[in-house]
Amino acid sequence: MSYCLGVQVDEGLVFAADSRTNAGVDSVSTYRKLHVFDRPGERIVIVLTAGNLTVTQEVINRVDRCLARDEPGRNLLLTESMFDAARIVGDNLRAVFDRDADYFKAHGSEFNASFIVGGQIHGERPRLFAIYSLGNFIEASDETPYFQLGETKYGKPILERVLRPDLGLMDTAKCALVSFDSTIRANISVAPPLDLVLYRKDAFELAARQRIDKDDPYFNALQRHWSEGLRSVFANAPDPDWEAVSEPLSKIG
Amino acid sequence: MSYCLGVQVDEGLVFAADSRTNAGVDSVSTYRKLHVFDRPGERIVIVLTAGNLTVTQEVINRVDRCLARDEPGRNLLLTESMFDAARIVGDNLRAVFDRDADYFKAHGSEFNASFIVGGQIHGERPRLFAIYSLGNFIEASDETPYFQLGETKYGKPILERVLRPDLGLMDTAKCALVSFDSTIRANISVAPPLDLVLYRKDAFELAARQRIDKDDPYFNALQRHWSEGLRSVFANAPDPDWEAVSEPLSKIG
Repeated sequence: MSYCLGVQVDEGLVFAADSRTNAGVDSVSTYRKLHVFDRPGERIVIVLTAGNLTVTQEVINRVDRCLARDEPGRNLLLTESMFDAARIVGDNLRAVFDRDADYFKAHGSEFNASFIVGGQIHGERPRLFAIYSLGNFIEASDETPYFQLGETKYGKPILERVLRPDLGLMDTAKCALVSFDSTIRANISVAPPLDLVLYRKDAFELAARQRIDKDDPYFNALQRHWSEGLRSVFANAPDPDWEAVSEPLSKIG
Repeated sequence: MSYCLGVQVDEGLVFAADSRTNAGVDSVSTYRKLHVFDRPGERIVIVLTAGNLTVTQEVINRVDRCLARDEPGRNLLLTESMFDAARIVGDNLRAVFDRDADYFKAHGSEFNASFIVGGQIHGERPRLFAIYSLGNFIEASDETPYFQLGETKYGKPILERVLRPDLGLMDTAKCALVSFDSTIRANISVAPPLDLVLYRKDAFELAARQRIDKDDPYFNALQRHWSEGLRSVFANAPDPDWEAVSEPLSKIG
């Protein structure tokens, strides 16, 4: 399992991915799931991957090789819009499906790959897309300002509570890291190092790019702060005034 | 989907369940998923149910009808131990399986039901069990002090952070409600009213039993406290000192 997250706020975009892949507990590896394609000053496209590693690696390979082609419909660095960039990733995913799906089926394996594609191309605002196994995709909006891939549930509550369009870029990154912390604590199949990327609107280059290991001093400080903060909020939670069934609740507390 | 939670701490047991069941979005109903069987002063057994409602209702019905029998191996109010109580629920689940499973299969439906069974019988400490669709079961321990059924992931992070054996009974109930709050926010298939039950060790009767509606003043106050508390912890989170790729991070915050 993986966990990948892409968030769109007014100030820009934040992307994060863990780097653990596994095929059974005896086979756990670390691979990069966050890919950056850019022409500084003109465009930047970030791609996050989740699902079967043979599929996602081939998709990224195909996208990579197309960077040498002079075809705006196939080259991520020549497209006119982020919509077209998302389509290129989806088209390459379909090409892999056409080649591999029968073999997956014959072996009883599920063909499963999904992507988050986001960034900005000169002339457009920053945009964020989620691409499904089918190769089709949807775009983020103010009401749905983030997409998750993989092990999504543990890290969702904090996103639902904190994310909003006017949240600053750095706070959005912190929120992403807390979401990863909750996921890592709950599920062994998601683990550091994490890749984290911040993109500030209209910069056409990365604002920050960080690989965060499990001993990363800032990540550890944030984990501690969050853990202690939650415990303290919990400790100060109000007491109920429920009517007891058999004795006053004051005796229970 | 449902969400049910049973927790064992030194002071006793806490059980909570939502009450929404659904078979597709156009068919959402409210049913009780928390059942109490007791002989005040001698034993109390709480059963939480999740999965296919036709199955869980028939299991509870069978358990109920057996209360009239004079057989300790089948009557929940006559068993010598909580282990035997869990076995009775598992046996009744297997009886329903034997009767219904072929029809589920013929219609392409999954036979799916699970239970949490906990309580105390005179002569034993309080105990807590989780029963799977197969009718087999496991017992909670200090390392695994809680069981969840149904939509478990959204509400797990707070349990992992806060629950420990020496947490008071009332605080354990608060923790359960926060876990439900996170789940309800993230998933429309889990909804109030919630049923909540507190059992204090060696009391052999309920300490509190509460049905919590969406407008419950205490639940709303707890939700507000938690939401505001999290936001405040988040607002005070430390800033990173990452080295920026293209500009100092101080310009990003």
